Amino acid sequence: MNIFLNFASILLYLVAQCQGSGTDIALDAKATLLHRIDSLNLLIYTCLLTLTVLTIWVFKHRRVSWLHETGLAVIYGLIVGAIIRYAASTNQVTYINVHPAPETKYNLSVPPDMLRLHFPDKMMSSGDVPVPNKTYAYSFRGEIVNVEQNEIDLKATFDPEIFFNIILPPIIFHAGYCLKRKYFFRNLGAILTFAMVGTALSALVIGSLMYGCVQLMPASLASSFTFLDTLYFGALISPTDPLTVLAIFSQLKVDVNLYAMIFGESVLNDAVALVLSGAIQNYELRYSNDGGFEITAFLGAIGDFIGIFSLSLLVGALMGYKSNDSLTTVYMTKFTHVREWPLLESALFVLMSYAAFLIAEVCELTGVVAVLFCGICQAHYTYNNLSSDSRNRTKQLFELLNFLAENFIFTYIGVSMFTFPKHHFDPWFIIAGFVTSVLGRAVNIYPLSFLLNLGRNPPIPMNFQHMLFFSGLRGAMSFALAIRNTVSEARQAMLTTTSLIVIATVVLQGGAATHALAYLRIPTGESSGNDENDALPYRDVRSLYQATDSAGPDTPRDHGDGATGQKARLARLWGAVDSKLLKPLLTHARPPLTETLPGFMRPLARVLTTTHQYTQGDNTLRRTDSDSDLCIDEQHPIPTSIDPQLSINVRNGYGHV
Amino acid sequence: MNIFLNFASILLYLVAQCQGSGTDIALDAKATLLHRIDSLNLLIYTCLLTLTVLTIWVFKHRRVSWLHETGLAVIYGLIVGAIIRYAASTNQVTYINVHPAPETKYNLSVPPDMLRLHFPDKMMSSGDVPVPNKTYAYSFRGEIVNVEQNEIDLKATFDPEIFFNIILPPIIFHAGYCLKRKYFFRNLGAILTFAMVGTALSALVIGSLMYGCVQLMPASLASSFTFLDTLYFGALISPTDPLTVLAIFSQLKVDVNLYAMIFGESVLNDAVALVLSGAIQNYELRYSNDGGFEITAFLGAIGDFIGIFSLSLLVGALMGYKSNDSLTTVYMTKFTHVREWPLLESALFVLMSYAAFLIAEVCELTGVVAVLFCGICQAHYTYNNLSSDSRNRTKQLFELLNFLAENFIFTYIGVSMFTFPKHHFDPWFIIAGFVTSVLGRAVNIYPLSFLLNLGRNPPIPMNFQHMLFFSGLRGAMSFALAIRNTVSEARQAMLTTTSLIVIATVVLQGGAATHALAYLRIPTGESSGNDENDALPYRDVRSLYQATDSAGPDTPRDHGDGATGQKARLARLWGAVDSKLLKPLLTHARPPLTETLPGFMRPLARVLTTTHQYTQGDNTLRRTDSDSDLCIDEQHPIPTSIDPQLSINVRNGYGHV
Repeated sequence: MNIFLNFASILLYLVAQCQGSGTDIALDAKATLLHRIDSLNLLIYTCLLTLTVLTIWVFKHRRVSWLHETGLAVIYGLIVGAIIRYAASTNQVTYINVHPAPETKYNLSVPPDMLRLHFPDKMMSSGDVPVPNKTYAYSFRGEIVNVEQNEIDLKATFDPEIFFNIILPPIIFHAGYCLKRKYFFRNLGAILTFAMVGTALSALVIGSLMYGCVQLMPASLASSFTFLDTLYFGALISPTDPLTVLAIFSQLKVDVNLYAMIFGESVLNDAVALVLSGAIQNYELRYSNDGGFEITAFLGAIGDFIGIFSLSLLVGALMGYKSNDSLTTVYMTKFTHVREWPLLESALFVLMSYAAFLIAEVCELTGVVAVLFCGICQAHYTYNNLSSDSRNRTKQLFELLNFLAENFIFTYIGVSMFTFPKHHFDPWFIIAGFVTSVLGRAVNIYPLSFLLNLGRNPPIPMNFQHMLFFSGLRGAMSFALAIRNTVSEARQAMLTTTSLIVIATVVLQGGAATHALAYLRIPTGESSGNDENDALPYRDVRSLYQATDSAGPDTPRDHGDGATGQKARLARLWGAVDSKLLKPLLTHARPPLTETLPGFMRPLARVLTTTHQYTQGDNTLRRTDSDSDLCIDEQHPIPTSIDPQLSINVRNGYGHV
Repeated sequence: MNIFLNFASILLYLVAQCQGSGTDIALDAKATLLHRIDSLNLLIYTCLLTLTVLTIWVFKHRRVSWLHETGLAVIYGLIVGAIIRYAASTNQVTYINVHPAPETKYNLSVPPDMLRLHFPDKMMSSGDVPVPNKTYAYSFRGEIVNVEQNEIDLKATFDPEIFFNIILPPIIFHAGYCLKRKYFFRNLGAILTFAMVGTALSALVIGSLMYGCVQLMPASLASSFTFLDTLYFGALISPTDPLTVLAIFSQLKVDVNLYAMIFGESVLNDAVALVLSGAIQNYELRYSNDGGFEITAFLGAIGDFIGIFSLSLLVGALMGYKSNDSLTTVYMTKFTHVREWPLLESALFVLMSYAAFLIAEVCELTGVVAVLFCGICQAHYTYNNLSSDSRNRTKQLFELLNFLAENFIFTYIGVSMFTFPKHHFDPWFIIAGFVTSVLGRAVNIYPLSFLLNLGRNPPIPMNFQHMLFFSGLRGAMSFALAIRNTVSEARQAMLTTTSLIVIATVVLQGGAATHALAYLRIPTGESSGNDENDALPYRDVRSLYQATDSAGPDTPRDHGDGATGQKARLARLWGAVDSKLLKPLLTHARPPLTETLPGFMRPLARVLTTTHQYTQGDNTLRRTDSDSDLCIDEQHPIPTSIDPQLSINVRNGYGHV
């Protein structure tokens, strides 16, 4: 930790150097100093991540389950944040007040992008060396709310936009890429209900309750919050991030349907909350003139929400298809040996996925939502067309990026508790935030589960509902939304409350997850996760849960028909469209379109079918279509089980195993 | 390409929106606009890279060898740059002149970091809505040299520091990571001579010649260049980047010694040129008061060069060892099954490598040099300790990063020719730059080869010297150095000349490389590169070249002794230190230190040796030590041949194959 002491001495040394002879040299030294402070900040986080990795290693060895890597990252972040705050020297920023030159003509209502300062101008320079007058450019930074506060801190903080443009995209893409599994589609109804309806409901309930609480508080605080502010808080605190819980689930081999529900909901509610908060802000900015409620503006905000969400979804899905398409085009023109260059394949894959994010951002949509659905599509279609080398490569790349980004953001949450200058601790608001976020989660889960159980064939049992409620940890998305805007006191109080909720839920709730599982008597299949006998724990779990599969895994040939009989309607519909139309069209998977489309469309189908699809054997088929990859635990992927759709194809006579 | 037309209309629409009612909303819209322009810029480059990838694919299929991917990236960049320049609308930046407030007291010789503007203050706002006065912060941007030029362009350009902090590190690390091979160490003498002495010589010759040329030019130009300026130009144009040539080499299976010399030199001369240019700048800034020559200042600059280079090297090497060390520590404490978590291993590997870069930057050293030597060390030591999954993962990750970064920088060179606002076209300077850079390369290669041949057992033949001369393509490092500082007219002329030299050499020289090989009658072993018979082409090549190996690859058991007899002294010395001291100390490789250290150091040796080292069999030894991995062509790695050092160990009785 002596790096921080060195830091202080370097700073002092360099500030001393800054007062050297020529202005140019001093400016140069200053630029160097700033660059080094940036490097030092990055170095601090790099060291923290390294420390986290090493500790996780020890924890994995000792089978410590009460602290996940994200919890660890938060705790390390808090410790180092405290050290930076109290041990390192401060770096005072110099400033002066300026007035426009008398002759200035400027007719815009916005402040100019640039100021030009003639320095030292008429000011007296204390140095005895005469300093030449030069003109310097200053670029717009933002509004100064608190004019008295004259220190702008440079300590270990980043531009909040970094989270949205660099940290979140790989995390969200990876989540989408891992959604590729049949259990997700089988529970699609429940997942969509919890994520779409539940999140909106939760935001509304938290927003209303918080508004009520705020009104009961001291007048100074009450006046600074509008209903839209508290609603915004509701939207940003609603998305869940149950990383810790899911890590324990995959370790303990908890029921896959429960896993799919919690994971699927958490992935989708991030997207919903992001768009929802954007719609609330738009409402605030564009529609409301007096802060009151207007029905047309409200409908406009809802339109905004639906429009942005579905257009972003479309952009992401299109880019996913497009990237599959360009791969397919390359293959179709008989360049089948391009698979020899997995580097090009992976580069294309990464570039197209990032392009989805950027296109959405350029079109004023939500890049994160686009990248999520791009990930889902890539996993569902493109993945099957990649060479096995590229599959591994892209999977490992995104796994690594996700790991680093996730731990970075949790480290940053810890560090910023101490170093971010715009925290506002308000005990009443914090207490109210904790209580309402718990209530919001309850409102999301229990009533919706009740409604879902009316239509669901195997209902969601009560202990699963409790576990869903318990998995309402808050994480990266809430924090990123809270830190994005900290101009007003209300927003600063929200940031502080959100940070504390994230830290508390990740460390405490995450740590208690194993006990919660035991207390709720949710069956776990601890036995083993190896290639040979992984079917075993799942059979146990299924039989306890009365799962949708009637056929056990020991009779895989009948599995397909047995499953389709009881499958949720939504999943069945999707499965049919997907296996008969989308997959053959977009990938090399069988059956060819010529056999699935009605007779009158045969000519079209023939054009769209590759020779590869006609000629490939069943082994290729089995190998290339890995739609049932579970991807629950990246380190120990559970190997491909027999996919119902595949089994159907096989039984229908297209092949013979 | 209709994206650019859309771009223009979006801009117009949004600028119109900016003049809306409230200042807050207008500011918000402006921030959104800036964010979208950033996204659009990134999207342009993402699309360009995608296009490059797709075209390369086609080229690889058609075996097009006259245009490498970097050349393609440059050409696409030029086309798109021209379109952006002439088709898209401009985005005018608003600015006003300001004066300090009358009461300001400020006693530093540097301009302040921040300005505070009370807006609209006394200015008349043209809007009929009364705008409230607010205070805005403006942050320091830089000096305005040309006060008349009032447009600061936002078109598709990036902060030059991005190249040094984000783009170059992965490229350089990957280069260092690929240097891990015996042919590099066997030609170490020649490589170091060309890279260290040759680059300095080339910089001096180019600098002097350019100074002479500049004196003959019109007076306006002559006066703006000092000798230090032209010397700086010499330093930045000296490093070579023969990517295209090397790609063709590995395709055509050209002699590995020639490959190692060209590749090794290009990797090291990047580092040398970077430190050299830093030393010249330091000389300029700190030592010279009147621009004249001072012997003490000159010696100081040389001291700077040596000090910064060796300290950066030390930081990189230490971090390489350290990361190996922490892995070893984890293993040594009997956590041997931590290898089950390759994700953690790879994350640690990436973090430690990046930490090397950051530590060097924080210590005012050169991060790029540190990351280069970190890469070399990681490849040499840590690589052997990684699990095979992590090896693949890290290798593929850096391969992909390197590919994307490299193509991005070449695309940017193309685009910035048209969009970067600080180009200064001076035909005389450009012509002089082309001529002197060719002469500088000649001065580097021919005299030094002559001197080397006096001491070298198998001399460097004349056609190899011509090929070394021909491989003097300029690339990423020259461009990054040139674009870093463009304040004066002299520096802007240097940037333009450097960009043109890079584009010309990459496209033309790179395209002619195959013909040059044929013209110079350099033997190529086109036959095959497969696992089974890859020894064949190399034997042919070696017999033609009278290589350092007397023993052919068909007698690998004798290879070790035969080779050591004729090996270069430097390589032999290094090999002994490495295999007897460094490797056993830092990795699990055999022989254990207890057998290589003299008797009186046995107790120390016993402490430093792992049980794994005592107990491991020879198969493990052969498998884990892949020091002779050639890594010439990442897509078709040539498999491990027998390493001479290993053979020695085996024959000395430590094992038995």
